[in-house]
Amino acid sequence: MDVDWRGSGLSGVARATVYCTTFWGLGVSKLTEEKFSAVMDSIASCSPAPGGGTAAALAGVMAASLVEMVTNLTLGRKKYAAVQDEMTALAREVRELRGALGELAAEDARAYEEVMDAYKLPKASGEEQARREVAIEKALHRAAQVPLRTAEAALAVMERAEIVSVRGNQNAATDAAVAHLLGSASVKGALMNVVVNLQTLNSRPEWAQLLSEQCANIAAREQELTRLMLIRQN
Amino acid sequence: MDVDWRGSGLSGVARATVYCTTFWGLGVSKLTEEKFSAVMDSIASCSPAPGGGTAAALAGVMAASLVEMVTNLTLGRKKYAAVQDEMTALAREVRELRGALGELAAEDARAYEEVMDAYKLPKASGEEQARREVAIEKALHRAAQVPLRTAEAALAVMERAEIVSVRGNQNAATDAAVAHLLGSASVKGALMNVVVNLQTLNSRPEWAQLLSEQCANIAAREQELTRLMLIRQN
Repeated sequence: MDVDWRGSGLSGVARATVYCTTFWGLGVSKLTEEKFSAVMDSIASCSPAPGGGTAAALAGVMAASLVEMVTNLTLGRKKYAAVQDEMTALAREVRELRGALGELAAEDARAYEEVMDAYKLPKASGEEQARREVAIEKALHRAAQVPLRTAEAALAVMERAEIVSVRGNQNAATDAAVAHLLGSASVKGALMNVVVNLQTLNSRPEWAQLLSEQCANIAAREQELTRLMLIRQN
Repeated sequence: MDVDWRGSGLSGVARATVYCTTFWGLGVSKLTEEKFSAVMDSIASCSPAPGGGTAAALAGVMAASLVEMVTNLTLGRKKYAAVQDEMTALAREVRELRGALGELAAEDARAYEEVMDAYKLPKASGEEQARREVAIEKALHRAAQVPLRTAEAALAVMERAEIVSVRGNQNAATDAAVAHLLGSASVKGALMNVVVNLQTLNSRPEWAQLLSEQCANIAAREQELTRLMLIRQN
């Protein structure tokens, strides 16, 4: 087996796992329930998963947490009486987005391992080869869909960072702006991970086409939101 | 007491702490040794610290972890024999930067609390007022210096993300690019936090001047590194 896919030559990965600390080696079911430093260790290790896709999702988790903080600093303040209901709804929404992005962070690493497993399927007979091809296609499609969902969720966080920047507690404007920056890094990083998987999905141009269009729409909105933030900063 | 500083009106904060979960309430000495979700909870809470400064530093921690992963995926590979020593040195450097940024994440929240404490000092007599003024100045200066050091460390991570993008394992190019994005968000977010503190440090224009110049240099290099990444992406 000598297939190159994403993070590393797969043959190299298979060899490397013996010496690597992976997230899964930690034996936890939920990445965000692990120590912050342990999550970073598993990213830093020589295992390609968790990698950039997971880190992008975790940046989205941080952005969502910051937006929630700004809603919390706005709630219960007389000066912001007019936006109390809106802030309550926003707080609930970003809490949900935070949970979803935390799940996607772990799913990204899992999706990568499924691609590796698909490549390891037997290919002695024609039937085995056909079954392996289908498994690889499906796994790659999923590995592209997970970061696409990350990008969508992180974009939703950015939309809310924009709202709290404008109508939330103005003393927390810097926190809202940092949420914006982290949301943007999350969207862009996730989209890069969709693209890198699409490049390998060349046997299914119709899937690749659809995913590309979705990426373009998200990228356009991300740019628009970043433009709005920059206008406010200057 | 009715001073407005950064995250929230201080009087509001003092009241709010009763209902708030702060990082310090968790009773841990090192933020990165806490659960990922607990760190996010303490950011999301209605306490203004930890906030954007801490989140910016933590984004730098993630960027450093990703750069380290790319060095680990480059080490021991024949194809990259020529850069083995360089990657070994880079791995050590980003591990140190990761540690430093983790400390700065916690220091940022502490520096904020020191500013709050300074504002709470007695101001009945002229002598007390003078002592309080000096304490506030010093605390604000430190609250600006911590994110400045964060920006410097995150910029150092970006420099190394650039190197591994060019000379590290090319199968991990997306991971290096995500490190770049997170490093950039960390630098920019930290610089915003320096600026917001400088605005309050108006009694010491000479300090503000020096810090402003340092910020401008960091911002210029960050833009240059981002430009290099974008050229490579297109």
